[in-house]
Amino acid sequence: MQRNLTAGSLVGIYAKLSQAWQTQNSLLCVGLDPEMAFLPEHLLESSTPYFDFCSAIVDATAPYVCAFKPQFAHFAAAGRETELAEVLNYIHARYPHLVTILDAKRGDIGSTATYYAKEAYERYGADAVTLSPYLGYESVAPYLAYAERGLVVLCRTSNPDSNWLQNDPADTEPVFARVARRVAEWNAQGQCMLVAGATYPEELGSIRQLVGNMPLLVPGIGAQGGDLVAVLQHGLDPQGTGLIISSSRGILYAAAANGERVTADFAQYAANAAAALRDEINKNRDTT
Amino acid sequence: MQRNLTAGSLVGIYAKLSQAWQTQNSLLCVGLDPEMAFLPEHLLESSTPYFDFCSAIVDATAPYVCAFKPQFAHFAAAGRETELAEVLNYIHARYPHLVTILDAKRGDIGSTATYYAKEAYERYGADAVTLSPYLGYESVAPYLAYAERGLVVLCRTSNPDSNWLQNDPADTEPVFARVARRVAEWNAQGQCMLVAGATYPEELGSIRQLVGNMPLLVPGIGAQGGDLVAVLQHGLDPQGTGLIISSSRGILYAAAANGERVTADFAQYAANAAAALRDEINKNRDTT
Repeated sequence: MQRNLTAGSLVGIYAKLSQAWQTQNSLLCVGLDPEMAFLPEHLLESSTPYFDFCSAIVDATAPYVCAFKPQFAHFAAAGRETELAEVLNYIHARYPHLVTILDAKRGDIGSTATYYAKEAYERYGADAVTLSPYLGYESVAPYLAYAERGLVVLCRTSNPDSNWLQNDPADTEPVFARVARRVAEWNAQGQCMLVAGATYPEELGSIRQLVGNMPLLVPGIGAQGGDLVAVLQHGLDPQGTGLIISSSRGILYAAAANGERVTADFAQYAANAAAALRDEINKNRDTT
Repeated sequence: MQRNLTAGSLVGIYAKLSQAWQTQNSLLCVGLDPEMAFLPEHLLESSTPYFDFCSAIVDATAPYVCAFKPQFAHFAAAGRETELAEVLNYIHARYPHLVTILDAKRGDIGSTATYYAKEAYERYGADAVTLSPYLGYESVAPYLAYAERGLVVLCRTSNPDSNWLQNDPADTEPVFARVARRVAEWNAQGQCMLVAGATYPEELGSIRQLVGNMPLLVPGIGAQGGDLVAVLQHGLDPQGTGLIISSSRGILYAAAANGERVTADFAQYAANAAAALRDEINKNRDTT
């Protein structure tokens, strides 16, 4: 089951991601969050509606992205783990140059963490997986053992009630900064990334100061109101890369108004939305 | 799929747990962490080895416990979600008075958290699920919406490298104490519990001070070296309950020396180990 990421000069997740940024000329990541209520009518009869939907989104948006981020809970709540694995296989087979990030936010220790790593990297074959930092190093070590895979640790999340834990002004050093420093220490093999929400661009900037060129996964553009221009100003690395800017609903369900089922031409709408966001990012990359 | 926990005077997770503590005269929880490498030879040919193993453990240890805690990753890494659901169904059907805690340590926001709650409570039918606090209230609210189910939030974990995040002496108030206070605020309906590791009994005591009678799930007895007597001294509520003391390997694999496959009589060994630990807890409950 273990995939070999070594192909030509590509070795390891940083190399794969860097190459995807360059060859795709894109920092955009499309989040794959399928929801039965929003799928087009014609897929409701399928035995694999989530795979059908996601693979169509992948084909439509692949030209415009550096990465795809399938979200675990959306599949798991519906008992559709097999389709999740098939979506990842589909991306790896057709678009081996694009990075896959399994968004599962795992966080446990010991043998349990070892099994979560095995699930993400072997069962699903993901290039990278999202993790919680709450339990510290013991919850990260089993993932680091997969030298060519990546791990994306929550640092500063985009939602407002994370403040009291992640950024309490009473702390000598806020927790998000402690997390950034620790993850940088754990990064001997070039595997680590951090989640830094677009809704807190200045804190994203201080994370960038703490971790050098470490890639940052940035949710919160779109519905959550993150400021794209500020994110780019504070977060780009000296090469004009370093960010994986994630959008899910704004692309997946671009064919429908809020809360409605998408139409049969959802993939074309998704492609247009992805192209537009990629271009908006690039326009602001050039001017910063 | 949604189970009704209302039976007689039982309403909600606190009532169910309280009744289990009393009628079972036990604070013991058996963690169900199946691993292929440790299963008895005769189960290796089964198409459902994890279910066979766990259901035998459940039958053998049910007289001595208040709760069972199936661990998600152990099943998921092997693609055995169906067996996980069957284990939970088995417990609910045969031992409806015992509490089930799905140990999954979920932590996400928005629609994703809603899907994780649906997975834990509807797909798997668990009475309670473990969660990470890192993202704050938005990551807990969807679980609170299931008024009769429980949520067990990580507060002070048992492993050493959690200190820099959970209990940094430079913090005005350590993160674990902030978590305890917040979770107490969220607990309007009597659904919340906290994880407090046995390896830090004094911090467990300060959590008890902060949250009144809120139930605490206590890992870290056994291999991790937690001090049972100190846990009871610091953690019992005025009724001599309030703790769910969890043990996994020390019971599941009692029939084998460290790292070996268990023998065919594993269930009897597990029963003996569970009875002994239940008795050791009760002996020290009486004298504190």
